Amino acid sequence: MKPIRVGLLGIGTVGGGTLRVLTRNQEEIMRRAGRGIVITTVADQDTARATAAAGAGVRITGDAFSVVADPDIDIVIELIGGYTVAKDLVLAAIENGKHVVTANKALLANHGNAIFAAASRKGVMVAFEGAVAGGIPIIKALREGLTANRIEWIAGIINGTSNYILSEMRERGLAFDTVLAEAQRLGYAESDPTFDIDGIDAAHKLSIMSAIAFGIPMQFDKAYIEGIRALTREDIRYAEELGYRIKLLGITRRTDRGIELRVHPTLIPKRRLIANVEGVMNAVLVKGDAVGATLYYGAGAGAEPTASAVVADLVDVTRMLTADPENRVPHLAFQPDQLADTPVLAMEEVETSYYLRMAVADRPGVLADITRILADEAISIDAMVQKEPPEGADQTDIILLTHLTMERRVNIAIARIEALPTVFGKVTRIRQEDLS
Amino acid sequence: MKPIRVGLLGIGTVGGGTLRVLTRNQEEIMRRAGRGIVITTVADQDTARATAAAGAGVRITGDAFSVVADPDIDIVIELIGGYTVAKDLVLAAIENGKHVVTANKALLANHGNAIFAAASRKGVMVAFEGAVAGGIPIIKALREGLTANRIEWIAGIINGTSNYILSEMRERGLAFDTVLAEAQRLGYAESDPTFDIDGIDAAHKLSIMSAIAFGIPMQFDKAYIEGIRALTREDIRYAEELGYRIKLLGITRRTDRGIELRVHPTLIPKRRLIANVEGVMNAVLVKGDAVGATLYYGAGAGAEPTASAVVADLVDVTRMLTADPENRVPHLAFQPDQLADTPVLAMEEVETSYYLRMAVADRPGVLADITRILADEAISIDAMVQKEPPEGADQTDIILLTHLTMERRVNIAIARIEALPTVFGKVTRIRQEDLS
Repeated sequence: MKPIRVGLLGIGTVGGGTLRVLTRNQEEIMRRAGRGIVITTVADQDTARATAAAGAGVRITGDAFSVVADPDIDIVIELIGGYTVAKDLVLAAIENGKHVVTANKALLANHGNAIFAAASRKGVMVAFEGAVAGGIPIIKALREGLTANRIEWIAGIINGTSNYILSEMRERGLAFDTVLAEAQRLGYAESDPTFDIDGIDAAHKLSIMSAIAFGIPMQFDKAYIEGIRALTREDIRYAEELGYRIKLLGITRRTDRGIELRVHPTLIPKRRLIANVEGVMNAVLVKGDAVGATLYYGAGAGAEPTASAVVADLVDVTRMLTADPENRVPHLAFQPDQLADTPVLAMEEVETSYYLRMAVADRPGVLADITRILADEAISIDAMVQKEPPEGADQTDIILLTHLTMERRVNIAIARIEALPTVFGKVTRIRQEDLS
Repeated sequence: MKPIRVGLLGIGTVGGGTLRVLTRNQEEIMRRAGRGIVITTVADQDTARATAAAGAGVRITGDAFSVVADPDIDIVIELIGGYTVAKDLVLAAIENGKHVVTANKALLANHGNAIFAAASRKGVMVAFEGAVAGGIPIIKALREGLTANRIEWIAGIINGTSNYILSEMRERGLAFDTVLAEAQRLGYAESDPTFDIDGIDAAHKLSIMSAIAFGIPMQFDKAYIEGIRALTREDIRYAEELGYRIKLLGITRRTDRGIELRVHPTLIPKRRLIANVEGVMNAVLVKGDAVGATLYYGAGAGAEPTASAVVADLVDVTRMLTADPENRVPHLAFQPDQLADTPVLAMEEVETSYYLRMAVADRPGVLADITRILADEAISIDAMVQKEPPEGADQTDIILLTHLTMERRVNIAIARIEALPTVFGKVTRIRQEDLS
């Protein structure tokens, strides 16, 4: 089957990430989508940059309008940003019967209603997972995963820049201006940070989620928006003392009197999971009447996280264009004739870290025997605690944390340690994972 | 358009929840699905229970095989459990060309490969969002949301009973047997808790996620499974002292040598979000090469959370049967002709709680003036802190937390407080949300 042909408009950070992810994972993506997905054309005002990024075989043009009119393009990815030219391009692509993938929240928050109406008329998909919370598949969760629910409210940390600034202010006790300047130096904040720190970007994303949650048109113009410029480290510290964290939240809630749609700094009880989302990470908490609270967490921006969402949308469109409806999504995600026979490892072959606890005689040389055995099996020790023996007892606990090693080696070491006359009973072994 | 007709097999906890959610939210679900979804037949061995639960107009039968053969049924929901009769019923439903929705992880982990092969041959969907992590749409995230990624590993807290037991052991310093007995009394653990506490249930779910993540057949028989029976409170305490929490994790990872597939108690650094998932809640952490780590959190079991997933699957099948492929999922989740005109509330009309900070003269009567103003506006105080004035200063900070009140009232109160001669400068106002 011929691959799906994609035209990419704009090859900045996310565009470059999209090209990279599609190329690097092309085999795995094809096994899932049932068909190749190829970016055949890239449009960017900077054609030299586009040529450098795109590699051989990709047509480069400075004229994005030629791409949306190109009969050899099936899907257009719009990553230009803003809502003037981008709007014209998206509407032209739709008019020409092309499916559109975009990560442009400003465009959708301002002109989504018109764009979706045009798309419905022409029978094309406008997919926009990348527009909200970057790589977190929150649009899919809201549109498809939670359809059983009457959604009660959504509260999201949906701007990484402002969350980074608030995290740094709290953890290091610094003032807003100091952290902002640092964030700009590190590339976490733009030279004009208005959209991020004044809550506008968050309000764009919130307007989209609110519409999807409550079945209303997008109404960005009605959102209440307050950013984080006025926050002081004193307030952050006082909130902390009272058991709260301050986060810039986008909140939308259904009440008897109407829909709340608001972005502002918010005190949240420290013990809530979402209060512990730090740095540039995003998280969206959704309350449904049936499911209760669910939370979705991940990177909300960045080249490859956003590309992850853009490419997932490409796969969605490709599956729709390729398979019969009932086979659109393969049961096990990959096409049934594309399953791999990768073996499952026996536990003995698994490499991980370990917590080992053993009861030992409180006597010289015990630790030397144990560490000798571990060294023999090439198991290196990350941390060790020997407990004081209880009053009058001549036995105590040793706890060891190991570095990465193979389960088989640990089995051998445990058997040898248990055979020592100075070790009592069984060694307790619990595996340890860093999960980073 | 005629509603989709559903036959429900088994009306226990989840079956009852499914009926309840479909009935309560029928209007909202129809606005999303584009078509009504009606349970027309319920099969249960206990026909009296089924009659009591189902209400008028629903056919009740003790013979589940008559339902999977009924030409008037479009979708069969299998909620019987186990993998003997359930397997025969699911295969018979598929053979008769019916789409199947199931939350039966034991069935899929043991016979999923055969069931999916049969479904592919007959061109029917077998949807199973409810089989893993209850109401969390993790199957959708893995099969559709993260398709751009080479998945590196998944680590999940996917058994609520064992997570509840571990949380209680840690928080209250109790022994395993004590907490298990209590969990059984409270209904969080079954009278035979083997599947939950010995890791078998988690391994069922993990096998399903592993297959979807890595494009391999389900291989439950190859999983390494170790439960939580042997864990002592000492180990939990020692782990805590070293900066770790112990969780029963299902872990599957792709390595150069093969796929890891293992369930066992695991030490995780306390600072990880997933280490702070407590009680019966579930969470799945997925590492993809493009998106990085994403986390999905919510209720992993229970009547309505699981029903949320079952009904989402019904909507998925219904949308597929109802709309043209490109209109399967409406852009804003609800059908374009079904959008509501619910108004967006002005900020003045929003009800929330508030943090108020003000600089005041360190003088008698100041607090009385402020609390009088708040009382006038019917704003009740949840907490109040008056800071010691710094050495030699005659000015200090007062911080107030309010109960729920309307923004308009707070605006009035703030204006009046700022007009007091004993209050200096502006009152800082930060909104507060409980998010429970």
